[in-house]
Amino acid sequence: MYKVSDTWLRKILVVLYEKRQTTRAEIVAATRLNVASVSQALRHLMDSGVVLKQGELQSPAGRRRDDLKLSSETGYFIAVDLEGTSVRFGLANFLGDIRCRWEEPFASGRGLDMETLSRGIAAVQNPLSARERGRVLAIGVSYSGTMDREGRVTAVNFGWEDYPLARNLSSVTNLPVFLATECLTKLLAERWLGTARAARDVVYVTVANGVGIACMADGRVISGRDGFAGEFGHINIDPQIRDRCNCGNTGCLEAVVSSPAIVRRYLQISGGGGQPLRWDQVAEVFSLARAGDKAALEAVDRAARHLGVGLANIANIMNPELIVLGGDVLHAPDLFLPRIEEAIEARTLPRLRRGLEVKASALGFDNGLVGAASWAFHKAVHDPVLLHRIAGTQEPRKRQARRTRIAKT
Amino acid sequence: MYKVSDTWLRKILVVLYEKRQTTRAEIVAATRLNVASVSQALRHLMDSGVVLKQGELQSPAGRRRDDLKLSSETGYFIAVDLEGTSVRFGLANFLGDIRCRWEEPFASGRGLDMETLSRGIAAVQNPLSARERGRVLAIGVSYSGTMDREGRVTAVNFGWEDYPLARNLSSVTNLPVFLATECLTKLLAERWLGTARAARDVVYVTVANGVGIACMADGRVISGRDGFAGEFGHINIDPQIRDRCNCGNTGCLEAVVSSPAIVRRYLQISGGGGQPLRWDQVAEVFSLARAGDKAALEAVDRAARHLGVGLANIANIMNPELIVLGGDVLHAPDLFLPRIEEAIEARTLPRLRRGLEVKASALGFDNGLVGAASWAFHKAVHDPVLLHRIAGTQEPRKRQARRTRIAKT
Repeated sequence: MYKVSDTWLRKILVVLYEKRQTTRAEIVAATRLNVASVSQALRHLMDSGVVLKQGELQSPAGRRRDDLKLSSETGYFIAVDLEGTSVRFGLANFLGDIRCRWEEPFASGRGLDMETLSRGIAAVQNPLSARERGRVLAIGVSYSGTMDREGRVTAVNFGWEDYPLARNLSSVTNLPVFLATECLTKLLAERWLGTARAARDVVYVTVANGVGIACMADGRVISGRDGFAGEFGHINIDPQIRDRCNCGNTGCLEAVVSSPAIVRRYLQISGGGGQPLRWDQVAEVFSLARAGDKAALEAVDRAARHLGVGLANIANIMNPELIVLGGDVLHAPDLFLPRIEEAIEARTLPRLRRGLEVKASALGFDNGLVGAASWAFHKAVHDPVLLHRIAGTQEPRKRQARRTRIAKT
Repeated sequence: MYKVSDTWLRKILVVLYEKRQTTRAEIVAATRLNVASVSQALRHLMDSGVVLKQGELQSPAGRRRDDLKLSSETGYFIAVDLEGTSVRFGLANFLGDIRCRWEEPFASGRGLDMETLSRGIAAVQNPLSARERGRVLAIGVSYSGTMDREGRVTAVNFGWEDYPLARNLSSVTNLPVFLATECLTKLLAERWLGTARAARDVVYVTVANGVGIACMADGRVISGRDGFAGEFGHINIDPQIRDRCNCGNTGCLEAVVSSPAIVRRYLQISGGGGQPLRWDQVAEVFSLARAGDKAALEAVDRAARHLGVGLANIANIMNPELIVLGGDVLHAPDLFLPRIEEAIEARTLPRLRRGLEVKASALGFDNGLVGAASWAFHKAVHDPVLLHRIAGTQEPRKRQARRTRIAKT
């Protein structure tokens, strides 16, 4: 009997997604399924057109090796990246490649409404044909803020308190909506498709309106009891720092390192003259620093040093193999990386810093979109209905055809 | 056929160990094995005398419920706790209860030799009969320091550099030896038999010669890439602190919070007059503080406040449900707990501190021994040879008897 379990399909789809191009043998090794199960599931996925044979490779032992990958047009995901300064929208194909982008700059505190969200979601679907639109599978959302068990988001930035984002988006678009916090989606994006592929002990740190981390230990994300782990911005980095943090305390890392903190510091030192800047214009401060402006250099340097000490602490606690930087520091890895490396060299125990790498995200500012799309992909393959849409739609007909053919011979 | 898989036995033994007293239904739920497998394995374990039926309970639904537990005399473990100020030895029964203790005070830097270790190991086995001695299964060691892949320990305290502890202990005693770092064994002791039973997101912190943590996220220990995670003592807690840490830096948490740091601070403030103390006499400082000595109060208070801030940071990062305190602070939870709670109240975000508990270890100074014994138990049931000794020795004979009996009827 030609029977394929959902579990096999799920495991195989996830491996194909993460490896992008792989072989039957690698799938067997990665999924730990037996060879017959993998073969049956792959035959099914190839029959449905979800998996493509890319060609044959000759292995060193002279044996034939099929090169397999997912068909990029199996389905699409809409990715929404809700972060501090803008709302980004993307349309991702089945491989997680962002095919189309739309961005709306966003002024903090003005409130974000469903109209803006709907407009962006419509915009990224514009290039699709009607047939392709029918293959949009789900929406993935990367948000900064907190969410309760009912999927209601609280985010000061967007003027949301217990805002039923998932429900509203779903009712407007008639699509399943999967939400995850910014740090989590970006960590997973780096793990699945970015800088941290194959790494098992990784820290992703983002510097934007706030400062947060997401940690993976032995391949598993650390969420904490309530899913609130990662409030790196609120560790006490220096009791002498008098800058007040959004949380009301002084001494928090975020009060020195976040983008608004860097701009504020620059304005303080420069006396506010010359160039008046808004908090979201941290990239200007980086440019000024690069041009040798002393106030800008000092503001950036202070942030970079403190971020470095914070990460040195994290390295002592978590013993990661890799720290990936994202957020606004991606405008200026040249200004941040050396300071961070210095701090780790000075403050992380030798046996913990040996071989530890610190890298800027290779996905860059796309990591929120890629993360949202990847999150939607993973949630979709774990949803029985969506999995059936992905892998099973044409299955009964094809199966019958095959049986008929066999019966005829 | 009467066949029992090693995996079933392992899973069931671990559940019985952690629950201490349980039912067949609970075992099925906890192991996720099917009912028939659990019944077969339990029948086997009861036949071998490893599992005892304690009596029958009447469940609310009126159904009979067997109450099961491990036989405490199935086997014994020797536990060795190598920490800063003394070497402790214990003999644990199969349930992890310490039946016999031996302690040798230990002066730091003098070097710890095999003779001392052998003496302690012999001492705790003294009360055993010859037959019981034959049932000593393994040695578990809780050490502070680092270990390489070959089981060689480096620990300044004991004068060891790449010291082949596992090999030496094993060749002297002819027993398998399982080693794990102090923080890990103590965390697991709290999780299996102590304060953190059933908790999934736990931080164990120890204050002694150094300061370390061990973290469990969603039931799994965070080890880091090389197993070095948990160097909490070397986070930078306050750049203004000039006290030099053992690592050579200033500003480390350990330079303020460790027992030697507390004693040193007390001597500094009190001018060294009155009571000359060694670094390992921190309990004296606690007593002086309780008696109202100002220098002692200030030294303890400074340590407790900084420890609190460090733990508030950890709570922000990890979102644990429980923080368990161990080590020398167990001499004075009354002096430490209020300060730690204050710091968490002040510095951990509200949603992360809601419901967060901070507790002194219920196992107290035994947690190193219980941890070493529990570690040995878990390693033993995962070792095929030892598992066979535990569960399988009388198996073939009993099985035959049963088959014969059946054949006769």
